[in-house]
Amino acid sequence: MNLSAKIIAEYLGGNVIGNPDTEVSSVARIEQAKAKQICFLANPKYEHYLYTNKADVVLISQKFVPREPVAPVLIVVEDAYQAITILLELFNTLKTKNKRGRSFRAKVSWTAKLGKGVYVGPFAHIGKGCEVGDRVQIYTRVYLGEQVKIGTNTIIYPGVTIYPGCVIGSDCVIHAGAVIGSDGFGFAPTPDGLYKKIPQIGNVVVEDHTEIGANTVIDRATMGSTLIHTGVKLDNLIQIGHNVEVGANTVIAAQSGVAGSSKIGKNCQLGGQVGVTGHIKVADGTRIGAQSGVSGHTKPNEILMGTPAIDYRTYYKAYAIFKQQPAQKCKEIVK
Amino acid sequence: MNLSAKIIAEYLGGNVIGNPDTEVSSVARIEQAKAKQICFLANPKYEHYLYTNKADVVLISQKFVPREPVAPVLIVVEDAYQAITILLELFNTLKTKNKRGRSFRAKVSWTAKLGKGVYVGPFAHIGKGCEVGDRVQIYTRVYLGEQVKIGTNTIIYPGVTIYPGCVIGSDCVIHAGAVIGSDGFGFAPTPDGLYKKIPQIGNVVVEDHTEIGANTVIDRATMGSTLIHTGVKLDNLIQIGHNVEVGANTVIAAQSGVAGSSKIGKNCQLGGQVGVTGHIKVADGTRIGAQSGVSGHTKPNEILMGTPAIDYRTYYKAYAIFKQQPAQKCKEIVK
Amino acid sequence: MNLSAKIIAEYLGGNVIGNPDTEVSSVARIEQAKAKQICFLANPKYEHYLYTNKADVVLISQKFVPREPVAPVLIVVEDAYQAITILLELFNTLKTKNKRGRSFRAKVSWTAKLGKGVYVGPFAHIGKGCEVGDRVQIYTRVYLGEQVKIGTNTIIYPGVTIYPGCVIGSDCVIHAGAVIGSDGFGFAPTPDGLYKKIPQIGNVVVEDHTEIGANTVIDRATMGSTLIHTGVKLDNLIQIGHNVEVGANTVIAAQSGVAGSSKIGKNCQLGGQVGVTGHIKVADGTRIGAQSGVSGHTKPNEILMGTPAIDYRTYYKAYAIFKQQPAQKCKEIVK
Repeated sequence: MNLSAKIIAEYLGGNVIGNPDTEVSSVARIEQAKAKQICFLANPKYEHYLYTNKADVVLISQKFVPREPVAPVLIVVEDAYQAITILLELFNTLKTKNKRGRSFRAKVSWTAKLGKGVYVGPFAHIGKGCEVGDRVQIYTRVYLGEQVKIGTNTIIYPGVTIYPGCVIGSDCVIHAGAVIGSDGFGFAPTPDGLYKKIPQIGNVVVEDHTEIGANTVIDRATMGSTLIHTGVKLDNLIQIGHNVEVGANTVIAAQSGVAGSSKIGKNCQLGGQVGVTGHIKVADGTRIGAQSGVSGHTKPNEILMGTPAIDYRTYYKAYAIFKQQPAQKCKEIVK
Repeated sequence: MNLSAKIIAEYLGGNVIGNPDTEVSSVARIEQAKAKQICFLANPKYEHYLYTNKADVVLISQKFVPREPVAPVLIVVEDAYQAITILLELFNTLKTKNKRGRSFRAKVSWTAKLGKGVYVGPFAHIGKGCEVGDRVQIYTRVYLGEQVKIGTNTIIYPGVTIYPGCVIGSDCVIHAGAVIGSDGFGFAPTPDGLYKKIPQIGNVVVEDHTEIGANTVIDRATMGSTLIHTGVKLDNLIQIGHNVEVGANTVIAAQSGVAGSSKIGKNCQLGGQVGVTGHIKVADGTRIGAQSGVSGHTKPNEILMGTPAIDYRTYYKAYAIFKQQPAQKCKEIVK
Repeated sequence: MNLSAKIIAEYLGGNVIGNPDTEVSSVARIEQAKAKQICFLANPKYEHYLYTNKADVVLISQKFVPREPVAPVLIVVEDAYQAITILLELFNTLKTKNKRGRSFRAKVSWTAKLGKGVYVGPFAHIGKGCEVGDRVQIYTRVYLGEQVKIGTNTIIYPGVTIYPGCVIGSDCVIHAGAVIGSDGFGFAPTPDGLYKKIPQIGNVVVEDHTEIGANTVIDRATMGSTLIHTGVKLDNLIQIGHNVEVGANTVIAAQSGVAGSSKIGKNCQLGGQVGVTGHIKVADGTRIGAQSGVSGHTKPNEILMGTPAIDYRTYYKAYAIFKQQPAQKCKEIVK
C-alpha cells in the first residue's frame, strides 16, 4: 500500500516541504533508500546522504536545517528517530494486509482454479469450478459458491458470501459480511392471496476497481445480470435489487437502497439512506440528497431532495415555508 | 425446481405456443420424455415423436413447421439444438442447489437430531438438542444454537445465525447473513442515567413458506415469541423488533423496520425503508408507501404515505402544494 | 444471569408479594437456599423452612397461606411444584449462555493471549497478537484480526468480524454479524472523474458496558479512532461512519446512520432510521425522532423531528397544516 507524504505527516503530526501527494510504499535506511521509499535523518553523520539519496521522502527533525538544496520531499517532525519507529509499525500493520498461502482449515474444491499468490484464510469455502485470479485475498469464512469468478488483486474480507455463478472483477475490495447474489425479491401473487416464488436464475457481475461496503447486499438478476460497473463505490448496509445496473464511478452512501430493475447512470452521487424505486432511470451525474426517495426518471446532473425527490432548491425553499407556517398561523389568529 | 415455459422462452430468447404457465422440472430426449419434462426436436428423423410424446414442453427451431397437431406446449427458438445446451446448463446449475450429505468439517452436536437427506455444509455448527427436518439444506458456516428446531425442506444459506431456542417452519428460505433470535433492544434507565439490560428470554417462531432476506435481523421476544406467520416474505436488511408479530402472507420490502411489540396484520404490503413505531397495530391489508413512517394504528386496506403516514392521496396532494409554494410566494411578491 | 422477581413472576404467570426488583441468580432447595437464590415450597412438611431460610425469593402455591411473617419476597403461582420445573429449564437455558473451553476447530494464533475462562467456539479465528480478557465468550466463526484487544466478560456472538487493531472494552455484548473496523468510506475524486481510495489506517475503540446490535457496522477511523464511549447501546443494522464519536450512555435505535466525523453527545436518544450528516455535533441529551435527518449542530436536550430536523413541536404543527391544505384548497375553490 502506498501512503502520501500528506497522510504520513498528519499521522506523525509533522509538516510537508514539497509535494504532499508524493507517495511511498516502504521505509529504508538513508544510505540505501530508493525511489518510492521513505527514509529518515537522525544522526548528523549521515547528513551528506540527504543530498544524494534517491528516496522520494525524507523525515527530518525540526531542529535540523539543511545546508544544501534537497531533492526529496521533506517531512519535518519533532523527533525524526521517534517518528520512524511509529512509521515502521504503521507499515508493518499495513503489510499484514497482504496475506499469502492457503490455510489447511479452508475447504477448496478440487475443481477450483486458483492463481498465483492467492491467500485463502481458515474456514473459507471455495466451491466447484471457481476461478480466482492472481493475488486475490480471501479471508476467513468467505464463501464462494460454484462457478464464481474473481479477477486479480481483489480483497474479500471475512464472512462475505458470493452465491454461485457471480462474477467479480479485478482490484475490487469487498468488506466483511457483504452478500452478493442472493435471490431477487420476486414473488407472483396467486388468486388465493399467497405468493409464489419466481425462480431467480441470473447472476451478479461486479466490474473492476469497485468497493463494496460491509453487510451490503446485491441481489442476483431474475434473468441476466445485476450489473455494478467499473469504479463504483458502495458504502455499508446498502441494498441493490435484482436486475439493477449501477453506472461507472457512481458513489452511493450507507444504507441506501435501489429497487429492482432500476438503472443508475455514471458519476452519480447518492447520499445516505436514499431510496430509488424500481424500474426507473437515474441519469448520469444525478446527485441525490440523503434520505430522499426517487420515484421517477431524472435528467442528467440534476440535484434532488425530498420524498418524492424534487429539485433541491425547491425542496429547501418549500421546507422553509413549511416550518414557518405554524408561527404564521399564530400571527394571523392574533391579528 | 420447476420452470415455466414462459421463463424458459425468455431465457432462450424464444416464443411460446400454448400455455406459458406450463411447468417442467427436467430435460429429456424426445423419444423418452414424460410429463413435467422438456425435450427438443433437432433432427427431422425424430419428428414423429413430436406427435406422440408425453413431454409437457418441446423446444423447436423456428424453421421447422409441424405437419400435424401437437399436444405439448412449444417453445420456438432460432436453433433448438443450441438452445437445449444452454437449457441443460441452467438445469444443472439449479440442480446443484439440492445438496446432500454432511461435511466432516461441520460441527454437529451428538444430541442434535437430523432428518433424512439433510445437507450440512463445511463449518456449519449445529448445537445441542437441535431438531432438523428432512431435506433441510444447511449451508457453509450456518450456526444453529441449542434447541433450535427446523421443519422440512427449508434452505438456510451461508452465514445465517439462529440463536438458541428459535423455531423455523417448513419450506422456508433464509438468505445469507440473516440473524434470527438476537436479543431484543430492551434496557431500563436507572436513576444515574445508565441503562440496565432487561433479560431477553423469549424466542423467534417463523412459520412455513416464509422467505427471509440477506442480512435481515429478527430479534427474540423479551418473553414469549416474536412471530413471523406463514407465507411472509421479508426482503434484505430488514429489522424486526422483539415481540413483533407479522401476519400471514405479508410482504415487506428491503430496509424496512418494525419496532418492538407492534403487530402487522395479514396480507399487508410495506414498501422499502418503511418504519413502523412500537406497540401499534397495522390492520390486515394495509399498504404503506416506501420511506413512510407509521406511528399509529391503521384501518384495514388503508394505503398510507409520509412521516407520520397519512392517506396516500392526501399526502401526494399536500406534497404537490408543498412544492409549488416557493413559486407562488414569488408571484405574490411580484404582484 | 440475574432475574428479578418481577420477570420471574411474569414468566410463570404469578404475582409478587414484596419488592419486585429483588434479583436471584439460581434455584435452590428450601432447606439449603442462600442469598440471591430462589426456592419453592410445595410440600407442607417443609413449611418451617419458609420462616428461617435465607433465600431472597420463594415460590409458593396460591392455596398456601403463611402462618407467620415471611422475610423473602414471595411469588404466588397456581402450582409451585410445576412452576419450579419451568423455572429450572429457564435457568438452564440461560446457563448455557456461559460457555467455557476452546474448540479444537478454532484457529487461535500462537501469539494471541487469552485470559482465564475464555470460551472460543468452533471456526472462530483469533489473529496474531490479540489480547482477550478473562471470561470473554467468543462464539462460532467470530474473526478477531491481528492485535485486537478485548476486555473482560465481553460476549461476542457468532459471525462477528473485528478488523485488525480494534479495541473492545469489558462487559460488552456484540451481536451476530456485526462488523467493527471496516474501512471508512473515503475516496478522493481525481481529475478524470474516478475515485482514489484514501488509506484508512485508524481503528475503532469501543468502551465498557456497550451493546452492539446484529449486523451493525462501525467503520475504522481514517486516522485515530472511531470512538464508542461507555454504556452506549446500538441496536441492529446501524451504520457508524469513520471518525465518529458516540458519547456515553447514548442509545441509538435500529437502522440509524451517523456519517463520518460527526460527534454525538452523551445521553442522547436517536429513534429508528435516523440519519446524521457528517462533520456535525449533536449536543448532550439531544433526542431525535424516528426517520429524521439531522443536518446541523444541535443544542443540549433539544427534541428534533423531520428532514432537515427541526423542533418536534414545530414539525408536528407544520405537518398538521401540510396535510390539511388539500382539503382547504377544495373549500376555497367551492367558495
